[in-house]
Amino acid sequence: MKICRYLRNGIDCYGVIEGEVVKATSNPFGSDVISYPGDEYRLSEVELLSPSSPSKVVAVGLNYKDHAKELGMEMPDEPILFLKPPTSVIGPDQEIKYPAQSKEVDYEAELAIVIGKATKDVSVENTDDFILGYSCANDVTARDLQRKDGQWSRAKSFDTFCPVGPWIETELDPDNLDIKLLLDDEVKQHSKTSQMMFNCRQLVSFISRVMMLSPGDVILTGTPPGVGPMQPNSKVEVEVEGIGKLINVVAGD
Amino acid sequence: MKICRYLRNGIDCYGVIEGEVVKATSNPFGSDVISYPGDEYRLSEVELLSPSSPSKVVAVGLNYKDHAKELGMEMPDEPILFLKPPTSVIGPDQEIKYPAQSKEVDYEAELAIVIGKATKDVSVENTDDFILGYSCANDVTARDLQRKDGQWSRAKSFDTFCPVGPWIETELDPDNLDIKLLLDDEVKQHSKTSQMMFNCRQLVSFISRVMMLSPGDVILTGTPPGVGPMQPNSKVEVEVEGIGKLINVVAGD
Repeated sequence: MKICRYLRNGIDCYGVIEGEVVKATSNPFGSDVISYPGDEYRLSEVELLSPSSPSKVVAVGLNYKDHAKELGMEMPDEPILFLKPPTSVIGPDQEIKYPAQSKEVDYEAELAIVIGKATKDVSVENTDDFILGYSCANDVTARDLQRKDGQWSRAKSFDTFCPVGPWIETELDPDNLDIKLLLDDEVKQHSKTSQMMFNCRQLVSFISRVMMLSPGDVILTGTPPGVGPMQPNSKVEVEVEGIGKLINVVAGD
Repeated sequence: MKICRYLRNGIDCYGVIEGEVVKATSNPFGSDVISYPGDEYRLSEVELLSPSSPSKVVAVGLNYKDHAKELGMEMPDEPILFLKPPTSVIGPDQEIKYPAQSKEVDYEAELAIVIGKATKDVSVENTDDFILGYSCANDVTARDLQRKDGQWSRAKSFDTFCPVGPWIETELDPDNLDIKLLLDDEVKQHSKTSQMMFNCRQLVSFISRVMMLSPGDVILTGTPPGVGPMQPNSKVEVEVEGIGKLINVVAGD
C-alpha cells in the first residue's frame, strides 16, 4: 500500500494511492485501522507533501560498506546518530534552498524508515510492528560547514535540507533494494541496501533504546558512495526500488 | 512575569506565577496577548511541566570563555550547534534516567532561551521581539558515549536528558547573570553569563539564519566550567539569577 500526505484546500490530508487515483483516508499514524471516508482525487491534481510531519528525524552516518571503503574509513561498531530538525523537511517537488553560508551543498540518497507507533526499547525481532513503511529521502548537507564545524548538525539542519517522499510504501522488504541518485538525469549514486552495515530493523531497535520514537518520525539510514555537490537549478532524483522517485529542484539564485 | 506550564486534570495548561499563586492564562506562544480566564491555584498544588513543549531544542557547544580556558581549548569563531530531540525534555522535579548504555552521565548547567514567535533570518538587534523569555536547563550528557561517537547527538539525546524549568522569566537582561549548579547541595559550577563567547541575541540571530525557530522552541546557551558526573539518586539543581531553581533527581537503580 502507498500512503501519501497531500494538501487539499489548505489542509493536509492522508490518502492511499491506487494507480492514478488518491483515495482519502483517516490519519494512518498511531492507529492500526485506516478508514476511507469515500473521497477520491486524481494523483495529478493533488499537491503531495512529505508523507509524514515528523516530530524528529534521526539519521545515521557512514552506514554503507561500499561508501566506507571508498573513503578508506573503518566502519563504526555502533551506528553514529545525528538529528535533523522537523523544519528541514520538505516534500516531493518542493525546492531545496542554497543557504548564503555555504558554497558546497551535497546530495545524499537515502532509504527512509517511517515510524507508525510510539517505539521505545524494541528488540530487533519486533521492530516490524512499529514501522509503518519506507520512503525515499535526500540528506542534504552543506559539506563545507560540516568540515568546518566537526559536528554535523548545522551543516544538515538548514530549512529544506530534508526532502522525503513521494509516499510511504508499507509492503516492502527493505534489505536488498536498489538505491540510486540522479543529478540532472545522470546517475551519481547506485548501490544496494544490502550494503548497509546496520540494517533497518537493527537501526530502529538501536535508536529506540536511546529515545522514544513517535508516530510519523523518520529515520534516515545512511548514503551509498558517490555523494557530490548540487548547483542552483539542479534537478535531483532519489529512486529506491519498490518505492518510487523523489524529485526536487535546487532553487535558482 | 513568570510563565509556567502545568498539569491540571491530565491537561497541560499555561499560567502566570504571582507569589504563591498560579493564575491560569491562554497559550502564550505565537500570540502577543495573554488572556486570563480567571482560574487561580496555589503553586504548591500544581504539577509544573517544562515551561514549553518545544518542536526542537538547539544547543551550543563550548560557549563559556572560562570553560574553554579550563579545557585549554580555542574558542570557535562561530557557534557549534547540535540538536536534542523533543523527547529528551522533562520538567522540574521529574526524574533523570540513567541509560544502561552509559556509566558516566554528566550534568551541564545552562541558561535556556525560550522562543515566542516564528523566527527566521533575524538580525541581532531584532531578536528581543522573538524571545519570550529565559529559563534554566540541564544539558545532560553521557560523556563516555560522547567520547566514543565523536558526534555528540546520541550522548545528548536520551529520554529525560533535557530538564527545563521551572518557568520562563520574561523580564530579564540575560547578559550578566549568576549561573550555578549544585550536586547534592554542593556547588559544582559557578560562573556568569557574561563569560559567554556568543551572547543570547547573537545565538538567536545565528540559529535563525540556519533554521526557522518555532514558538516554544528552546535554545541552550552552553555550560560554564565544572561539569562532572551524577549518580543514581543524586539531586541536581541549576540556579540562574533572576529566574529560579530547576531541581531534578537521578532515578535510583
